[in-house]
Amino acid sequence: MLRFLFLLGVVIIISCEQTEVQQINKEASEATSASEEQKIALVIHGGAGTILKSKMSDEKEVAYRSFLDSLISQGYHLLEDGTNAQDVVIELISKMEESPLFNAGKGAVLTAEGNAELDASIMHGGSLNAGAVTQIKTVKSPIQLAALVMDKSNHVMLAGNGAEKFAADNNLERVSNDYFKTEERINQLKQIQAKNKDTTALASNYSTAIQDYKFGTVGCVALDKEGNIVAGTSTGGMMNKMWGRIGDSPIIGAGTYANNATCGISSTGWGEYFIRGVIAYDISAMMEYAAMSLADASNKVIHEKLNQLGGDGGVIGLDKEGNIIMEFNTAGMFRAGIDGNQQKTVALFGKD
Amino acid sequence: MLRFLFLLGVVIIISCEQTEVQQINKEASEATSASEEQKIALVIHGGAGTILKSKMSDEKEVAYRSFLDSLISQGYHLLEDGTNAQDVVIELISKMEESPLFNAGKGAVLTAEGNAELDASIMHGGSLNAGAVTQIKTVKSPIQLAALVMDKSNHVMLAGNGAEKFAADNNLERVSNDYFKTEERINQLKQIQAKNKDTTALASNYSTAIQDYKFGTVGCVALDKEGNIVAGTSTGGMMNKMWGRIGDSPIIGAGTYANNATCGISSTGWGEYFIRGVIAYDISAMMEYAAMSLADASNKVIHEKLNQLGGDGGVIGLDKEGNIIMEFNTAGMFRAGIDGNQQKTVALFGKD
Repeated sequence: MLRFLFLLGVVIIISCEQTEVQQINKEASEATSASEEQKIALVIHGGAGTILKSKMSDEKEVAYRSFLDSLISQGYHLLEDGTNAQDVVIELISKMEESPLFNAGKGAVLTAEGNAELDASIMHGGSLNAGAVTQIKTVKSPIQLAALVMDKSNHVMLAGNGAEKFAADNNLERVSNDYFKTEERINQLKQIQAKNKDTTALASNYSTAIQDYKFGTVGCVALDKEGNIVAGTSTGGMMNKMWGRIGDSPIIGAGTYANNATCGISSTGWGEYFIRGVIAYDISAMMEYAAMSLADASNKVIHEKLNQLGGDGGVIGLDKEGNIIMEFNTAGMFRAGIDGNQQKTVALFGKD
Repeated sequence: MLRFLFLLGVVIIISCEQTEVQQINKEASEATSASEEQKIALVIHGGAGTILKSKMSDEKEVAYRSFLDSLISQGYHLLEDGTNAQDVVIELISKMEESPLFNAGKGAVLTAEGNAELDASIMHGGSLNAGAVTQIKTVKSPIQLAALVMDKSNHVMLAGNGAEKFAADNNLERVSNDYFKTEERINQLKQIQAKNKDTTALASNYSTAIQDYKFGTVGCVALDKEGNIVAGTSTGGMMNKMWGRIGDSPIIGAGTYANNATCGISSTGWGEYFIRGVIAYDISAMMEYAAMSLADASNKVIHEKLNQLGGDGGVIGLDKEGNIIMEFNTAGMFRAGIDGNQQKTVALFGKD
């Protein structure tokens, strides 16, 4: 708390200094007052699903809360220090990829063949440039690879072996697929495969499967001091997935979207419905064309449109004023955020 | 012309008969007059790019015109006969996949490694269900596989070997990759690779590459007698593509979108920009949220938004009233359509 007040003090002092410089520069007529300065904001998620207090050990609850709490503070301090939104999104998602608590990077769910196959995407709201990768097996940080696709190629989306060759060409860190596999995920796969020996039955039990094994897709959206909004998403996809299934996480418009003029969004949930509903872009479109607020647009998309389609999941997002949203129609969503008024939230379940 | 007048006559007679039946059924108060009946409409494209009369032999021009003319008439007759929009879209795109005139199926452009890798997607505007496949090497008709994913799986998007296993599980026709390769495409690949021996240089010459080798992605949107709108797209992607690049064609929202309440759209062009602009869904969103007409929305998306991003290409589409659009910012687009008022268009270049 003391640290927060100290940091708040620093922000106020810096703000005052900036205002002073502007006055010295005789730009008084256009001077930005402290309250009009570009706000910063940050929001993260670690997946939405059947996340109930009654089903979670105290130990696990503490682990999630402390991880999210610590991560959102680290990211916010980076933004305060002037780190740009893209670097903050990559840094925070990389840390969630490294944690076995989430279904991304280490601790990803496994395919029917027992491998981790990872997807990620990132979009920059200033340039409207984007990068996405799918079916990644040997790149330690899929979000870093997605960012590399955005910055160092003329493409938006790369897949599989080709994407890994691009990673190699750019000296991105590679690992064995075993790096991603945790004992918990190996056991979950065995359990689900024992239950669903007939793969045809599995397909029709997909709804049950996602209720049993919550999705832990991770995502982050940041608004930096320059007013740039960047959104990113990373996932291991669906437990026991077959047929090279691709969900919404690497799909720009569905899993990830960012536009400085409207908002940045990262989705998590039952990916097929998020693709069909073009969920992330739909929120931006409502803001752009129907002049809706971020809160109203995300509420409508999740609780009306996604519900009508029959899909489950949630979104996090923020707008250029630093308003943040964490909207979901599942029991819970791992989430944390600090909005433009420095209000901090860390929550796992329906309300807290 | 005589045949067209004859068909027009048949339609009028059928319309009159239907009205008569309704009157007999004493549903006069709710009777739908001939002019209020559900209109049918159909539109196809075979790619947009540097398509100039000055650069095309008379022989080739005739080949394209007669193919498009014949195909649009065949499809329209199917709709008249009561075939549903999905079957018509699959039928017409399959025929374009079989033709070496277009960059889809047989005659697809080749990857840097000299293989055909095909993408396709389809969306049903009534159910808002969708199917998409990417990196297909051995399935004769990628659009048929996309439709199978939509109808027979709980997924929307399948990739590569997994998608081919799904095709095999469902007994879809398979072929050797050589089936897709034409001498013309093999020679084009050799030429482009000779020009760009350094693969890094190729990436930065991507813009030049697409100007030299027009895209020939194919697409179709149909409106049937039930008022259902279905849109589909199929492509070989980008000539000399590397790193497992995926374009917009298999991306729901970018390359393909359909919603009975608004419109159906199929895109073609520089895929990266269509993904970043969420082009297909954007037209639908403008209609839904800003009450714009299909014509105004597609005009704005192609000539303002896509232009601002710096992208090239076009879209075809139709709405529930049977209005059709064929909008592009390239020199030309292979296109044909018959709108709700039975107005037929077949064109290749800027104006005709």
